[in-house]
Amino acid sequence: MKHAVSYELLKTDNRTKARRGRVHTPHGTIETPVFMPVGTAATVKAMRPEQVKEMGAQIILSNTYHLYLRPGHEIVREAGGLHKFMNWDRAILTDSGGFQVFSLGALRKITEEGVEFRSHIDGSKHMLSPEKSMEIQNALGSDIMMAFDECAPYPADRDYVKNSLERTTRWLKRCKDYHKDIERQSLFGIMQGGMYKDLRYESAMQVVDLDLPGYAIGGLSVGEPKELMLDVLDDCVDYLPKEKARYLMGVGSPDYLFEGVERGVDMFDCVLPTRIARHGMAMTSYGRVNIKNAKYERDFETLDPECDCYTCRNYSKAYLRHLYKCDEMLSAMLLSNHNLHFLVNMMGNIRKAIEEDRFLEYKNEFYTKYGRF
Amino acid sequence: MKHAVSYELLKTDNRTKARRGRVHTPHGTIETPVFMPVGTAATVKAMRPEQVKEMGAQIILSNTYHLYLRPGHEIVREAGGLHKFMNWDRAILTDSGGFQVFSLGALRKITEEGVEFRSHIDGSKHMLSPEKSMEIQNALGSDIMMAFDECAPYPADRDYVKNSLERTTRWLKRCKDYHKDIERQSLFGIMQGGMYKDLRYESAMQVVDLDLPGYAIGGLSVGEPKELMLDVLDDCVDYLPKEKARYLMGVGSPDYLFEGVERGVDMFDCVLPTRIARHGMAMTSYGRVNIKNAKYERDFETLDPECDCYTCRNYSKAYLRHLYKCDEMLSAMLLSNHNLHFLVNMMGNIRKAIEEDRFLEYKNEFYTKYGRF
Repeated sequence: MKHAVSYELLKTDNRTKARRGRVHTPHGTIETPVFMPVGTAATVKAMRPEQVKEMGAQIILSNTYHLYLRPGHEIVREAGGLHKFMNWDRAILTDSGGFQVFSLGALRKITEEGVEFRSHIDGSKHMLSPEKSMEIQNALGSDIMMAFDECAPYPADRDYVKNSLERTTRWLKRCKDYHKDIERQSLFGIMQGGMYKDLRYESAMQVVDLDLPGYAIGGLSVGEPKELMLDVLDDCVDYLPKEKARYLMGVGSPDYLFEGVERGVDMFDCVLPTRIARHGMAMTSYGRVNIKNAKYERDFETLDPECDCYTCRNYSKAYLRHLYKCDEMLSAMLLSNHNLHFLVNMMGNIRKAIEEDRFLEYKNEFYTKYGRF
Repeated sequence: MKHAVSYELLKTDNRTKARRGRVHTPHGTIETPVFMPVGTAATVKAMRPEQVKEMGAQIILSNTYHLYLRPGHEIVREAGGLHKFMNWDRAILTDSGGFQVFSLGALRKITEEGVEFRSHIDGSKHMLSPEKSMEIQNALGSDIMMAFDECAPYPADRDYVKNSLERTTRWLKRCKDYHKDIERQSLFGIMQGGMYKDLRYESAMQVVDLDLPGYAIGGLSVGEPKELMLDVLDDCVDYLPKEKARYLMGVGSPDYLFEGVERGVDMFDCVLPTRIARHGMAMTSYGRVNIKNAKYERDFETLDPECDCYTCRNYSKAYLRHLYKCDEMLSAMLLSNHNLHFLVNMMGNIRKAIEEDRFLEYKNEFYTKYGRF
């Protein structure tokens, strides 16, 4: 049986581990490295799906925890699946719900069976387990499903992390056993192990052994220093097979994307571009812009002279500031559009740079203009 | 000197006062009767301007009071005018700020000079007068500017209304005297007179005497019973010249639009379609839909089977309900789009019906499906 999703390696950078590849899915081919906009509740916030496509986004991420609670996965199934429900015909990746249960749910109780929790919306009691997460993701019909894992906090002691990663592996096996239709949807495994490199290695060996079409690196960017994160990431990638897709979860600032690509990561997702947009923040080629700033009151230039997105083609900073100050929805709509376009476009430039053997030059050029992190 | 704006009467209905015409402006010709979407703070809420154009809107209304306070008319002037500032290249009508000073401003003090008030945003003290209103609207560069008037409340005694309408006329003369560039922007007068038909006649004679390109009927739909409003409106229209545009301010429910057109009104505006959209309410060919209703939880049909708007082409009621329940911006975006499209499309049907001598038949057909009001 053919897996729904497969990875194709096109080229590896001559000086770094950066690689240019493709992820083939039932809803189109994704050129990698790729940034995936997040559509938590079956909508990329403040965007029409056509606008997300227009800027070149090839795949979005949606959240199992949120869709399970609202509207309920059975309703999405009855609607004909998530693609149809939300009017998005390109690829979708769904997370497992595990991370949200820990970060949003209340009164969590973890057992070998799964996690009992209360909804952050109405306090109702629920249970998520590997089987339940698969059942939900099967109903959603995403192209890539993530395994139900436990993401250890930072800091956490070695014993805790070791037990946690071993349970994550047992849960991954249960996910794989439950998921039947591998030609329609693919399951990605998640490596854990906290900041302990030997545990990362142990986790990698266990999940890779299950021969899945892709692997995520979980449990990074959870509060640890950036240097530590990058150091651990560097090793994590080495433990993963070259012929499978690699996904670094929840990372989306420009510097982390560059550093992740340089270390061999193919896929990224983050709410950052749309979240900061709603707070009046823009990513531009010359660094972050806080549109609330009084200095933009009479600034009739566009947000980013190097950007050709809808927002930058049509509006001035003075107008964007005005919209934000008036709490107008168009503010979030235009800034979300710009920020997503910025990252999607940046990833396109990164792919081109890898193809042309000038990834490090592009990275350096970008950092010089964008400013220090 | 030629006025910037002129009205062309194409046809009058054979059985009613409904009329088919055109308003020519520096930013295009408007087919009338017309509904004007409202873009209070230089944005039609939750809509990109292209989307407002796409559905066939020919002119929008923007608010002088709001733009004077934020971002300030001088900033809009420096931006190159309101059209450029907000990226809207079709016609714009601005109100005078008078109505908002009364409805939103605090600590109002009316004198012959104008109205002193405090901002509803920061409590700062301001003065609006006929001259100031013209200065602001000149800076905004709208195609149609409204005279600075006093809108009498309902109920109000005869003396109050008489004094008020006479002051409105004196203020109108001051507006006309202040406004110089009549080839760039046109000033419309506003008739007042409350519910007193003889005072309406008196007001009409005074404002018509100033020979402006269009006249608005103010002070209606301010809390009076519908029957009284329609009865007074019926007479008001008779007092206005046939060769000038007629505008009924602040009216936008489907039934009021039909009744207004039947009585000879050419132009309407209202925040209703976008405001109710933000509260999960949709106008459809079979009446109002409250998308919050539990019965839509598993309703995978579109909002209105007779509608071909973007929302109805792509989304189910179940999805729209989900978005509303999750407080997602896309909810307001999609419902605003639908409601505006509904009214703009309805006005197109009304124009066609007048052309084909079946206005009353169309009205009857619409009411039968839409339900009682």
